[in-house]
Amino acid sequence: MNERRFIADLLTPLATTAAARGFADDAAVWAPPLGRELVMTHDTLVAGTHFLPGDPPADIAWKLLAVNLCDLAAMGARPAGVLLSLALSPAEDDAWRSAFTTGLARALATFDVALWGGDTVAGVAAAVLGITAIGHVAAGKALPRHGARPGDGVFVSGTIGDAGLGLAIARGAASADKFLLARYRRPQPRLALGAALAGVATAAMDISDGLLIDADRLAAASGVGLALDLAALPLSPALVARAGDDDAARLAAATAGDDYELLFTMPPGTDPAPLAGKIAVTRIGVVTTGAGLALTGRAGPLALPARLGWEH
Amino acid sequence: MNERRFIADLLTPLATTAAARGFADDAAVWAPPLGRELVMTHDTLVAGTHFLPGDPPADIAWKLLAVNLCDLAAMGARPAGVLLSLALSPAEDDAWRSAFTTGLARALATFDVALWGGDTVAGVAAAVLGITAIGHVAAGKALPRHGARPGDGVFVSGTIGDAGLGLAIARGAASADKFLLARYRRPQPRLALGAALAGVATAAMDISDGLLIDADRLAAASGVGLALDLAALPLSPALVARAGDDDAARLAAATAGDDYELLFTMPPGTDPAPLAGKIAVTRIGVVTTGAGLALTGRAGPLALPARLGWEH
Repeated sequence: MNERRFIADLLTPLATTAAARGFADDAAVWAPPLGRELVMTHDTLVAGTHFLPGDPPADIAWKLLAVNLCDLAAMGARPAGVLLSLALSPAEDDAWRSAFTTGLARALATFDVALWGGDTVAGVAAAVLGITAIGHVAAGKALPRHGARPGDGVFVSGTIGDAGLGLAIARGAASADKFLLARYRRPQPRLALGAALAGVATAAMDISDGLLIDADRLAAASGVGLALDLAALPLSPALVARAGDDDAARLAAATAGDDYELLFTMPPGTDPAPLAGKIAVTRIGVVTTGAGLALTGRAGPLALPARLGWEH
Repeated sequence: MNERRFIADLLTPLATTAAARGFADDAAVWAPPLGRELVMTHDTLVAGTHFLPGDPPADIAWKLLAVNLCDLAAMGARPAGVLLSLALSPAEDDAWRSAFTTGLARALATFDVALWGGDTVAGVAAAVLGITAIGHVAAGKALPRHGARPGDGVFVSGTIGDAGLGLAIARGAASADKFLLARYRRPQPRLALGAALAGVATAAMDISDGLLIDADRLAAASGVGLALDLAALPLSPALVARAGDDDAARLAAATAGDDYELLFTMPPGTDPAPLAGKIAVTRIGVVTTGAGLALTGRAGPLALPARLGWEH
């Protein structure tokens, strides 16, 4: 199908809010809620780099939306709407486009997010998919990376390292496991947790490139050190069953990336558990004076691995 | 340079407003002005399709920003900030990146628009460049495409057809002309005019694919017909000197595309000239009952050409 038919038949049915104007105008128009600041992010996924050509299109749509919503969650924002940018190759045929838009519609509904607009172009060699996600937070309450202070507790949501094993499974380098594969293909934005942490946590970010490299970035932004207890790292039963839970397995989990969990710091003596609802939150360390990361393993201090995560 | 250095050395210096947070957080945070609705658009340019590999990087940056601001202008919105999405190929080397960001900084300053954030990825086969532009308009005053009513006057800003000749020059298919080439490479968003038309014009859009095809779309959105007087089409002296101004030359201009001028309709008896400042606005026809386009040439009614502009 050509771009016009693609937009008319598959994308315009997703323009279900007044702000989208049925994709009939040059831009979307939305009245932001009073007393809130806007939070805006744009993340891009490239075929062959951020997803694999054989990945189910509905999973790609989910991930494209979810990685952007994870950024909003890390700021403490509630999502409102998105603009979609699709640069498609011949590999994204009619069946792909149909499965992608169906999956996108479901993902949007899951997170109660509106599709407001965007752009589609054809004829690139490999797909480049982008979303701009727009949300809002109470004025002055957005969570920064720079606010961690010595003595704060360091916490992560969920479990760490599952997505790294999921990627190996998606690549055919490991045997199948539905849970681990879903942890790679269908990251879960911790939106309710992020919103509950707004104005409470001292610093936050989402873990995309690996817990250690992202923690190192949070430490650098805050001008502090982080002392992390590797033994406290929350691991899923599926990961432990496959990889064990010794220091080596834990270092692999902490550098695997694609977790899309929240890493955040809380003032001394405060417990995020009451804010987290059904989401597990685990204390993994403490903020220190100094700089960079200090790791403790089962037998005491542990040298940092040469590679902390994905560098770009 | 790697992505981290590119962002730190060339892009972060463009993060000059508080909303960008020095690109140190997961998203931008901006307090929208009270009483205004947000207007949001995303346009993508693909190397080889929307610009030529040999185009000066500063001109590509200008065009990427300008085509998005043209969409805001068509809605009557004032721009505030943008998010940038760069998927780059090996062809975009350090020199290209430096020239692009320098040009982008100048374009942002020209239109008083902030760079709020975005994403950069490397390793695609051909560059895919996107911008999400966010602006605002008085509540309820955004200009739609659907509001044209029979009896309204039909107007365009500036001159039509220059960019089509500019594209031929850029492709090496025509002899050089600085003005015409600039009309292709450096479109001028009619932001002041668009803002002045908000709440006054009955319908508006920007002309990107060709005056005739875009006029046909405005007519369809409004459920009306447009009777256009080809002889009234505003042509630049440079275009007339090169192509003449007979019906054939005027049809070529009206289907060339890339004009990025405003096409708009005004209630009967209203004159947009006092709103337009130094920008020329020309009445080119009238809204009628019925549907589609009716053209008049020098000798009377003229059949529509088989091709009205660029189809996608």
